[in-house]
Amino acid sequence: MFNKYLEKIKTYEAGKPIELVVREFGIKPENVIKLASNENPLGASPKAVEAIVQNAKKASIYPDDSMYELKEKLAKRFDVKSKEIIIGAGSDQVLEFISHIKLNSNAKILRSAVTFAMYDIYAKQFGAKIIKTPSYEHKVDEFILLIKQEKPDIIYICTPNNPTGDATKKEDVFQIIEAAPKESLVVVDCAYMEYVQDKEYKISPKELLEFENTIYLGTFSKAYGLGGMRVGYGIANEKIMHYLYKVRPPFNITTLSLAAAIAALDDEAFLQETLALNKKEMKRYEAFAKENNIAFQKSFTNFITYFFHLPLQSSQIANNLMKKGIIVRDLSSYNLNAIRITIGLPKQNEKVLQELKKELKG
Amino acid sequence: MFNKYLEKIKTYEAGKPIELVVREFGIKPENVIKLASNENPLGASPKAVEAIVQNAKKASIYPDDSMYELKEKLAKRFDVKSKEIIIGAGSDQVLEFISHIKLNSNAKILRSAVTFAMYDIYAKQFGAKIIKTPSYEHKVDEFILLIKQEKPDIIYICTPNNPTGDATKKEDVFQIIEAAPKESLVVVDCAYMEYVQDKEYKISPKELLEFENTIYLGTFSKAYGLGGMRVGYGIANEKIMHYLYKVRPPFNITTLSLAAAIAALDDEAFLQETLALNKKEMKRYEAFAKENNIAFQKSFTNFITYFFHLPLQSSQIANNLMKKGIIVRDLSSYNLNAIRITIGLPKQNEKVLQELKKELKG
Repeated sequence: MFNKYLEKIKTYEAGKPIELVVREFGIKPENVIKLASNENPLGASPKAVEAIVQNAKKASIYPDDSMYELKEKLAKRFDVKSKEIIIGAGSDQVLEFISHIKLNSNAKILRSAVTFAMYDIYAKQFGAKIIKTPSYEHKVDEFILLIKQEKPDIIYICTPNNPTGDATKKEDVFQIIEAAPKESLVVVDCAYMEYVQDKEYKISPKELLEFENTIYLGTFSKAYGLGGMRVGYGIANEKIMHYLYKVRPPFNITTLSLAAAIAALDDEAFLQETLALNKKEMKRYEAFAKENNIAFQKSFTNFITYFFHLPLQSSQIANNLMKKGIIVRDLSSYNLNAIRITIGLPKQNEKVLQELKKELKG
Repeated sequence: MFNKYLEKIKTYEAGKPIELVVREFGIKPENVIKLASNENPLGASPKAVEAIVQNAKKASIYPDDSMYELKEKLAKRFDVKSKEIIIGAGSDQVLEFISHIKLNSNAKILRSAVTFAMYDIYAKQFGAKIIKTPSYEHKVDEFILLIKQEKPDIIYICTPNNPTGDATKKEDVFQIIEAAPKESLVVVDCAYMEYVQDKEYKISPKELLEFENTIYLGTFSKAYGLGGMRVGYGIANEKIMHYLYKVRPPFNITTLSLAAAIAALDDEAFLQETLALNKKEMKRYEAFAKENNIAFQKSFTNFITYFFHLPLQSSQIANNLMKKGIIVRDLSSYNLNAIRITIGLPKQNEKVLQELKKELKG
């Protein structure tokens, strides 16, 4: 009765919400530390919060479906044309649009061994085959080999990479794009790009527009602190946009999300504060890992991934922390004996590392 | 390079936003009367607005992806199980899920001659064929004939119907469902059901659960006044839900939408006020139509559709009104010489009818 290929889909496992820990373990909401979904620990930009409050009464009114003002602002910010931008309910939704225009049950996607889970989920929703490189880092030779062998319809480059935190050098990204056939679409998912400081790794949408089969993805969910508002975007040439707009449903973000994103873009001070805090607290997590002999990947993001060796088990550690009201992301479903921790506020980080230390000792 | 069937899609034409009239005609936002998108003229429920303001700082936090509380409340309201409910970004998104699990380029949908535009748009997104009955009203014999002839994969019953305002008797809906093959999915789109007072036309999700291949759609966008927040739902048995959940993206409504919908469900007073105002003001539109010899269909919704005879042209009338800052929906893209007007506040309605009267005189 239903499309057959759907059977294969395993639903996305979201970071446990605070509500669940409250319900299951009877911990008060204010005592729960959630560092599982890479939300901004400073919250949302005060300007965005103000925009939400100011516009709350417009909750009954559909948003401007042309998203004129937000696209104009993004266009200016990135020195691209408004027509080269599409807004999604998170960059997730742009991934869905991309999958929809490119994939079918004969199609293939290529991605690194460990990367953002939604690439596979959307691929499976359209019955496409998933090809993985051997390494979770984006290695040029691995990508080029599989591009030649498999001629994938979509090639995903997630930089910085989630859930591992590593990034791919710009020159490597360009090499992969250049190796892609014209019929492939190369998706450069830059959800965490705001956190990248190093020039060798920093990629802008403008640069990617030089390639005719490439799309840049960005989001307001991380550095801009609007994870709960579901706003992301794709930037590509007008030919690609023509097709993406065909599968965009009307009113795909809320009226308040639109207002919040517009305001957040103006709040440069908040963005800088976010980056400064992240940089400072990241060092604490790096130091802790070194002190405690935990393997970790240098992170270009707002999270750090700790890799454990048996007998330590990430699922056990994450579970034990949860019972204490600390939510981190266990990565065993990615076949990693690792946990991903969002860089939180200083006090939260202190508490998390304190409790983690107890776990390490068994 | 892209999925071929997408070429056929004409993008959904949204009601013109206030921002556009402001930009194009230089009219002040506060002077624009927008009665084009069937938004609640009373705005959002005050309880929902309060919930938004109270939760504005949670804009950075992803919503509880299980949507536990909202589903529990809906389950109680409709006397169904929480597991029988799926939440969408508007009932639109549930239509998208339905299309995704049922359609492909060999599939067919059946719908009445004039009905909600998104059924076709989603069908085209999956390359499916669209079958239409001769009448825009849902006539049992027309549906049964085409069901037997075409064996459609999805059968849409939009009651009350949009953009015409008519409704289908419950016994007729049941007859159509009973005629549907077990392999078809019957979608009963009840976005405007709250406005229906007449028992013969009132349909509940619980009743539809008696049929194993039927889904009820509802929304918070109309009577609940949350059009801008994008919250709707589908109610069907767990077998159908199993597949719908496979294509639901995580976090598909915002944190504030969730809070607003939960609060709106508790605001029975606002709902009653909404229905009372609508009933009263609807009479004014009916009286005006009769006085001015305008054909109209008795409306079971929060809008009324006026049908014109040449030389009067709906597109011209809608355009002229827009220049005066009044936005109504021209239905010429539905091949109707008609306009759809949302029932507004008394003052708005007075002004609209005043200006419309001038148009009728030419």
